[in-house]
Amino acid sequence: MEQKKKLSIICFSGDFDKALAAFTLATGAAAVNWEVNMFFTFWGLNLLKKKKGRSPIGNGLLARLFNVLMGARDKAPLSRLNFGGVSPKLMTGMMKKNNVATLEELVDSAKALGINLIACEMAMHILGIQQKDLDEAVREVIGVATFLEYSQDAQTVFI
Amino acid sequence: MEQKKKLSIICFSGDFDKALAAFTLATGAAAVNWEVNMFFTFWGLNLLKKKKGRSPIGNGLLARLFNVLMGARDKAPLSRLNFGGVSPKLMTGMMKKNNVATLEELVDSAKALGINLIACEMAMHILGIQQKDLDEAVREVIGVATFLEYSQDAQTVFI
Amino acid sequence: MEQKKKLSIICFSGDFDKALAAFTLATGAAAVNWEVNMFFTFWGLNLLKKKKGRSPIGNGLLARLFNVLMGARDKAPLSRLNFGGVSPKLMTGMMKKNNVATLEELVDSAKALGINLIACEMAMHILGIQQKDLDEAVREVIGVATFLEYSQDAQTVFI
Repeated sequence: MEQKKKLSIICFSGDFDKALAAFTLATGAAAVNWEVNMFFTFWGLNLLKKKKGRSPIGNGLLARLFNVLMGARDKAPLSRLNFGGVSPKLMTGMMKKNNVATLEELVDSAKALGINLIACEMAMHILGIQQKDLDEAVREVIGVATFLEYSQDAQTVFI
Repeated sequence: MEQKKKLSIICFSGDFDKALAAFTLATGAAAVNWEVNMFFTFWGLNLLKKKKGRSPIGNGLLARLFNVLMGARDKAPLSRLNFGGVSPKLMTGMMKKNNVATLEELVDSAKALGINLIACEMAMHILGIQQKDLDEAVREVIGVATFLEYSQDAQTVFI
Repeated sequence: MEQKKKLSIICFSGDFDKALAAFTLATGAAAVNWEVNMFFTFWGLNLLKKKKGRSPIGNGLLARLFNVLMGARDKAPLSRLNFGGVSPKLMTGMMKKNNVATLEELVDSAKALGINLIACEMAMHILGIQQKDLDEAVREVIGVATFLEYSQDAQTVFI
C-alpha cells in the first residue's frame, strides 16, 4: 500500500492573500486525501484569533499594542495594494462574483476536512497569545521539534 | 535507475527580486536535469502577462483596476527599497555589469529548458485574467488538485 | 539504518521576523539531528554581514548605496509594523522577558550546532558583497547547482 502523501504548511504570514493561498493549497490537498498539517506562527496566528477585529490580547502593554495593531482574520491586509484594508473587501467581492470560495469559507472547509490546525508555542509566548484566544479548532500548541516530527516525509512549504 | 528529481515552485509573488530567485532556482534545477513545474498564482501571474506595462485586463471595473495597478513583468517592484520602480531598473543594470542573467534572460532560459509554466485557474478567475492574456509559453491553466498531482515526490517551495 | 532527515532553508528575506523563523526552524531541526543547510541569498545576505550597522560594502556607487540602505542583521526590519526599526527592538525585549531565544542567540546556536551556513554566489555578485564581508562561520559561497546537490532528498523551504 502506498504511503499517504503529506503536506505541512508553515503559516507565517497574516496577509489576506497569502492566507487565501495557504488555505486553498491545504484544502485542495486534503480533498485528494493528503494528510495536512498547518502550523501557525507569528503573524499567521492572527488568522486564528477567536475574537474578530482588534483586541488587546496578551499581558503587558507591548503585547497588547501589537495585538491591537495586528488584528484578527477579518483585519488581514493584502500584502500589496492594501489601500488601508479596502482591497481585501473588494477582493472578497470579486471572489463571490466569480464563485470562488472566500477566506471564511476556506477556513470552514479546512476544519470540515479535518486539517490539523496547530499553533506555534514560541510565537504565542512572544506575542502573549494564549490558546483560549484562538479558534476552538486549534487542537494543539506545539514547538518546532513536534512540528518536524509531524512533517517527516512531508512536503513542507513556508507561506 | 534513479528517479528524476522534481522541483515544484509556487510563484505567488510578483516582486522583481522574488521572481529572480524563482527563475534562478528553476533554471538551475532544470539545467541539472530536474523536472521543474512553476505554478503561477495571484501576483505571480503578472510575471507572465503578454502585454508589457499596465493593461486594463479583465471583466469589470475592479479587475481592470487591479490589473492596471499590478502591471506586467516589466513593472514588477522590488519587495523592499523599490523607490517607485527605480530600483529594479538599477538592479538590472548591476546584473548586466556583473554578467549575471537578467530576469528577461532567465525567463527565456526557463522556456528554452522546457520548464513547465502553469497558471492557477482560481487566481485567474478572481483577477479576471484569461489564458489569452498570458505568455504563449504557458501550457496549462490548472487547479490545485492537478498541481499536487504534478508535485508528487517533488520538493515544493512557495515564493 | 534510516537515512538522516534533511532540511534546506533558502534564506531570501532579510526581515527580522522571517530571520527568527528561519533560525528557529533550523536550530530546532539540527537539535533533533536533522542535517540542515541554510542558503543565504539576496536580502538574506544582510543577516550574515560581519560589520554591524550600515556599511558601504561593494564596488561601485550603486552596490555601496544598496548595502548602506539594507544594513546588517542589527538593522533587519520587521516585515510589517516596523515603525522605523523600533519594533524589532521592542520585540527583542518581549523575547527576553518571555525567555525566548533572541535572534543573536539563535544565530550563535546555529553555529554551535554545526548548521551549514552557505552564501549565494550570484546574489553576492549582484550586490557586490564578498566573502570577507560575511561572518567567518560562512563556509562556502556556492551556486544554485551545488545547493540543489546538497538538497537532494531534503525538505526545502523558501523564507
